[in-house]
Amino acid sequence: MRMYDIILKKRNNKELSTEEINYFVNGYTKGEIPDYQVSALLMAIYFNKMSRRETSDLTMAMVNSGDILDLSNIQGIKVDKHSTGGVGDTTTLVLGPMVASLGIPVAKMSGRGLGHTGGTIDKLESFEGFSVEMSEDKFIDNVNKIKLAVVGQTGDLAPADKKLYALRDVTGTVDNVSLIASSIMSKKIAAGADAIVLDVKVGSGAFMKNKEDAFLLANEMVEIGKHIGRNTIGVISDMDQPLGLAIGNGLEVKEAIDTLKGNGPEDLLNLCLELGANMVVLAKKANTKEEAKAMLMNTITSGKALEKLKEFIKAQGGNIASIDDTDKLPKAKYVVPVVSREEGIVHKIHAENIGLAAMELGAGRATKESIIDLAVGIVLNKKRGDSVKKGDVIAYIHSNDEGNIQKCSERIIENYIIKNEKLEEIPLIYGVVE
Amino acid sequence: MRMYDIILKKRNNKELSTEEINYFVNGYTKGEIPDYQVSALLMAIYFNKMSRRETSDLTMAMVNSGDILDLSNIQGIKVDKHSTGGVGDTTTLVLGPMVASLGIPVAKMSGRGLGHTGGTIDKLESFEGFSVEMSEDKFIDNVNKIKLAVVGQTGDLAPADKKLYALRDVTGTVDNVSLIASSIMSKKIAAGADAIVLDVKVGSGAFMKNKEDAFLLANEMVEIGKHIGRNTIGVISDMDQPLGLAIGNGLEVKEAIDTLKGNGPEDLLNLCLELGANMVVLAKKANTKEEAKAMLMNTITSGKALEKLKEFIKAQGGNIASIDDTDKLPKAKYVVPVVSREEGIVHKIHAENIGLAAMELGAGRATKESIIDLAVGIVLNKKRGDSVKKGDVIAYIHSNDEGNIQKCSERIIENYIIKNEKLEEIPLIYGVVE
Repeated sequence: MRMYDIILKKRNNKELSTEEINYFVNGYTKGEIPDYQVSALLMAIYFNKMSRRETSDLTMAMVNSGDILDLSNIQGIKVDKHSTGGVGDTTTLVLGPMVASLGIPVAKMSGRGLGHTGGTIDKLESFEGFSVEMSEDKFIDNVNKIKLAVVGQTGDLAPADKKLYALRDVTGTVDNVSLIASSIMSKKIAAGADAIVLDVKVGSGAFMKNKEDAFLLANEMVEIGKHIGRNTIGVISDMDQPLGLAIGNGLEVKEAIDTLKGNGPEDLLNLCLELGANMVVLAKKANTKEEAKAMLMNTITSGKALEKLKEFIKAQGGNIASIDDTDKLPKAKYVVPVVSREEGIVHKIHAENIGLAAMELGAGRATKESIIDLAVGIVLNKKRGDSVKKGDVIAYIHSNDEGNIQKCSERIIENYIIKNEKLEEIPLIYGVVE
Repeated sequence: MRMYDIILKKRNNKELSTEEINYFVNGYTKGEIPDYQVSALLMAIYFNKMSRRETSDLTMAMVNSGDILDLSNIQGIKVDKHSTGGVGDTTTLVLGPMVASLGIPVAKMSGRGLGHTGGTIDKLESFEGFSVEMSEDKFIDNVNKIKLAVVGQTGDLAPADKKLYALRDVTGTVDNVSLIASSIMSKKIAAGADAIVLDVKVGSGAFMKNKEDAFLLANEMVEIGKHIGRNTIGVISDMDQPLGLAIGNGLEVKEAIDTLKGNGPEDLLNLCLELGANMVVLAKKANTKEEAKAMLMNTITSGKALEKLKEFIKAQGGNIASIDDTDKLPKAKYVVPVVSREEGIVHKIHAENIGLAAMELGAGRATKESIIDLAVGIVLNKKRGDSVKKGDVIAYIHSNDEGNIQKCSERIIENYIIKNEKLEEIPLIYGVVE
């Protein structure tokens, strides 16, 4: 078998065999096939697409390129949730305790944030002493006892995906639905998921800028799941404005705690119920989504989910005092209101740019080496559809550096589109693919 | 400017600017842009094509990537002829003396053969003592005095083309008309041509397997020529069977001499007249092709072209005794007839396979390092359209190794398609693009 023939076959719009896909993924991972041949193949895939079968084969070839987390010692169906990334997305911190408190194992491997989207581990470190460093045995043990544990990247999961992603990133071959779908799915499967709920974000703050592409991607991943025997459900949700009100690590943790206490923003809660209901059904703890949603609401009203959060944070060394009193979470020196210069209805809050503004305050990493400030960020006071008068507070800036407040304030104002006309409603959930 | 943006632009089917094309060609030549980005761009070009303007820019960027032969001290319009490569193609050895004897400067930089097509330098070395090694000054001086000189590759001409071609060769991005056309044209222009006559071969022995592709390529090169101010004419000629009768270096030299003496094969003579007439017109030595053809025929009947060959071979150190007596050219130990097992009309002589059979006798190079035998090769005795009886000699094998004759004989028989039905005539010249 020769890589040259594989490139030519795909260029000529023929379907690659399982053996050919394994050959190129393995050869590339081992360094036997050079970058320049793989990038040519990726561009040919960009133009000629991949079939469902090819995409599934690519996914499994990437899974098999490295370690696969063995979670067989965890009792129950392990349902993983994955978000394609958004701004102010605190769902994991809300969903985890809710679902776990229903006895469903949540064994989460998580990462740190980069760019304008936050990472779950960064947020959790807002709890003093909290650590994601633990052995695989301890991780499995925690999940069995508490039903919820979050660990950092362990082992060498899907190294082929890492290498291919880095190459795609510099050769203009990122945005192909088969390549995106197989990349996401390979990581989830290597991390031991039995079933997967995908939160596919769409809008200005998301990777997918339009609904059609988001549905295509969700569909592709659900089909890969079917092909390889992992039940997968895709929820397409809005990311045209930030989710909830808080953007920034400690601020989002406070928002998650508030939500578990029954005082969270409506959109965040509703998305958590939708995603959570799908998880509960996939875990076979409820027969219908309606039933599952009622069970999940009950974990909040009964206080069980909040208790589960405490149990989980404590088990990983975190200080739970800040759960009862969120004032004990990291706090910024300056909290400055941003006021509107216009009057009307909020038509748009450009999510990506608000995320970047928070990043510049220190809430996110511009590069992998950046050090983040857990206390800083932005809290929105007005969301899409809200009426605003001149002088009304639209947002609060939480900063530790007086010097960056003015610029951030301008940026927030620029990215709030306020108009004196009726607003067409944008749904929170566009649809579910299963 | 970033290579990433250039890849994305072409991938998204936008036209690249002159600056962008210069940026990537220069960056790649200098080693500042990595192979894997260039191969991704080449694949995007394969799918989205290049406009005439982009192709011209690419040509000139490759010309400017290295040395450009300065032939300004040669008097007259320097018309170069280029063949896209065929089997048994001796046109340069016939054409050169014919055209030069009309006072048109022929300053030819030539190469050695690889694979199933021969190189002019290899053929010329059949003249004992002949050398293509000379200084640029001596080369120019010879052209001014004799009107004809052949030199080996001097200087670093179009290094960008060399590097790009090597990459295309391993990434499935060779067969795009813009990339092929710019590659050929850049080398001719760097070699100092004022005007160019292209012999675009089509058929089983050529790179272009069908007429449509050959016309496309010819058209592309003629348009590049127009764009950059070098008059260019493309002649599309048949290479579905070998040209002339001889395949092999010394054997082709004998055929060229025979042709200059008025005893050559008809197809070789006719192609030389067609290509030559276009050269004479481009050099402004005749107003019409008909006039030019008559002038060229006269160089043969008058013996002037043969005299020019002698003058040229002598000036470069070659022994001209073998021109008067071609028996003095390199001769093989064994000359073995191949006889037909069938009866009928020759419908096809698979040119590439006959070329490869000659290569295996030692007439061509399988790799760059192979040493060739100037004496060996194949001389056809029957061509397309000829009637053949069982036992008739269809070809002669000239070999210095008894052991390889049987295999070669089988191969020749296999590649002669003889049928008992009428044959549709294939023209020698499909058309002329100007």
